[in-house]
Amino acid sequence: MNSISNYIKQIESELSNFELPKHPENLYDPLRYFFDLGGKRLRPALTLMTADNFGAKGNNALHAAMAVELFHNFSLIHDDIMDEAPYRRGKETVHTKWNNHIAILSGDVLFVKAYESLAKCEAKYLPVLLNLFNKTATEVCEGQQMDMDFEKRLEVSEEEYIEMIRLKTSVLLGCALQFGAIVSGVDKSIQQSLYNFGQYIGIAFQIKDDLLDLYGEPDKVGKQTGGDILSDKKTLLSIKAKELGCDMNKITSVSDPIERVRAAQQNFRSIGAKESVEHKMVEYYDKAISSLNSLPETHQNIYVSFASFLIERVS
Amino acid sequence: MNSISNYIKQIESELSNFELPKHPENLYDPLRYFFDLGGKRLRPALTLMTADNFGAKGNNALHAAMAVELFHNFSLIHDDIMDEAPYRRGKETVHTKWNNHIAILSGDVLFVKAYESLAKCEAKYLPVLLNLFNKTATEVCEGQQMDMDFEKRLEVSEEEYIEMIRLKTSVLLGCALQFGAIVSGVDKSIQQSLYNFGQYIGIAFQIKDDLLDLYGEPDKVGKQTGGDILSDKKTLLSIKAKELGCDMNKITSVSDPIERVRAAQQNFRSIGAKESVEHKMVEYYDKAISSLNSLPETHQNIYVSFASFLIERVS
Repeated sequence: MNSISNYIKQIESELSNFELPKHPENLYDPLRYFFDLGGKRLRPALTLMTADNFGAKGNNALHAAMAVELFHNFSLIHDDIMDEAPYRRGKETVHTKWNNHIAILSGDVLFVKAYESLAKCEAKYLPVLLNLFNKTATEVCEGQQMDMDFEKRLEVSEEEYIEMIRLKTSVLLGCALQFGAIVSGVDKSIQQSLYNFGQYIGIAFQIKDDLLDLYGEPDKVGKQTGGDILSDKKTLLSIKAKELGCDMNKITSVSDPIERVRAAQQNFRSIGAKESVEHKMVEYYDKAISSLNSLPETHQNIYVSFASFLIERVS
Repeated sequence: MNSISNYIKQIESELSNFELPKHPENLYDPLRYFFDLGGKRLRPALTLMTADNFGAKGNNALHAAMAVELFHNFSLIHDDIMDEAPYRRGKETVHTKWNNHIAILSGDVLFVKAYESLAKCEAKYLPVLLNLFNKTATEVCEGQQMDMDFEKRLEVSEEEYIEMIRLKTSVLLGCALQFGAIVSGVDKSIQQSLYNFGQYIGIAFQIKDDLLDLYGEPDKVGKQTGGDILSDKKTLLSIKAKELGCDMNKITSVSDPIERVRAAQQNFRSIGAKESVEHKMVEYYDKAISSLNSLPETHQNIYVSFASFLIERVS
């Protein structure tokens, strides 16, 4: 059994050797550039880890893992356009470095590359893999649309927010894990347990992200804290704070950005929003761990370690 | 054997009964709207026609045909953004009626729906169908990128232009025909012949489009002639005219639009560009018909009729 970092390295190596045509340059150069920006590569690592854990043979897991990673990259390129994000990982986003039209089209062709990778899996697994992939891709689009819709709404409930992050982020973790299980030929019930684990840990992971954005240590997170507050983005923290009666105007009216972030940190803590969100995170962490119960005990450990690694991270 | 219009009706009926979720509205309403705009539906009709011609059983052809049509619609929604087209079929394009972000995302989810439809085909056909679909989708993206690149170039050769329309338009016709052949279980050589037929007739079809844009009768084409000239778009006519020594400045400097179109019509005709482009169209028409030679004779007729229908059309 490899450690998670070995699986990540394997994906990095696949991506850096990924063959793309030279022409048209404006279609493929953005993809080479985007792969070079790096990424956590956690999703495809989960596919490889699961395939190893259950003794899958051949290259199916690698093809399926790459499909997940290529799809994830496609969705980031398009999301960056929709979010009008100028930077990703400290470098220009594709639509900033080239333009929106090129970012749309190179995203589209990357989406095809994801399906191309999946199509390399053995025919006996293909229908099941393809159906799960299509379902997941649909849900990711739905999550992104909900996220955009929420930006324009005054009120978003906790349930709606969690449903949005489940779709936008978590179902792809579930899919990555189930892909590893499918190509290992394990029972449907185990496949489903792993999917659930992925989904719940994904939600906990995203809640952790919200917490780190406001309460992380800038040196460790690698960026200034409070980005979500400064861009007036809805997060579970702000939703919870409002629900607990926090007067958001008191925070948004602070003109100095550093003071505004500090006001949010203090207000959200004193009103109990921080604690409540931490509880929510633990709740989903626990749900994730419980999902593993139906797995043979020897097969559970790596997922428990992975869950701790995700939730205890500081960046 | 049905006539082409019956196959078109079958696709129209599938599209009008196509089930899409209600929520998120901003993701799915644009798709319902776009289906209602209508379309020629020629590509999926070719799949159904071929499947009937070769005696395919079951619903594979319908699922594959729908995959082609849904993909085509996806590519139109995204192309309209990239081309900044305000109207399609006399109605607002998706990005005009909603906005670019919504058009990107609803296009993306429609792309998934295309794969979902393909995934409904029998498992034994799926790997072959999927590989052809991926190859075709990649090429369509490449063709669109070439088209965008050409807009910014001063010189484009006839060969480059034809390669662009082959990728952007024609390979999907080839794919549609081959899909019909695949689900009928016919030999690879027949599959390839039908693909070639589609590709060549697609090029002839696109050249006809260029001719109709400048020389069509407005009443019949349903729009004013000369749109390509007025928007300074490169077409085979303008490329050929330049090659034959036409001074394009003489045309573009005419300020009155109606006079400018007339100047193009006259100049392109007198210099021999119109005739040369008509020859080119016939050349591809002939190549398409020759591709049918390897088919059993009784199976050729419907394609010959279809080719005439495409090329003799006045709109």
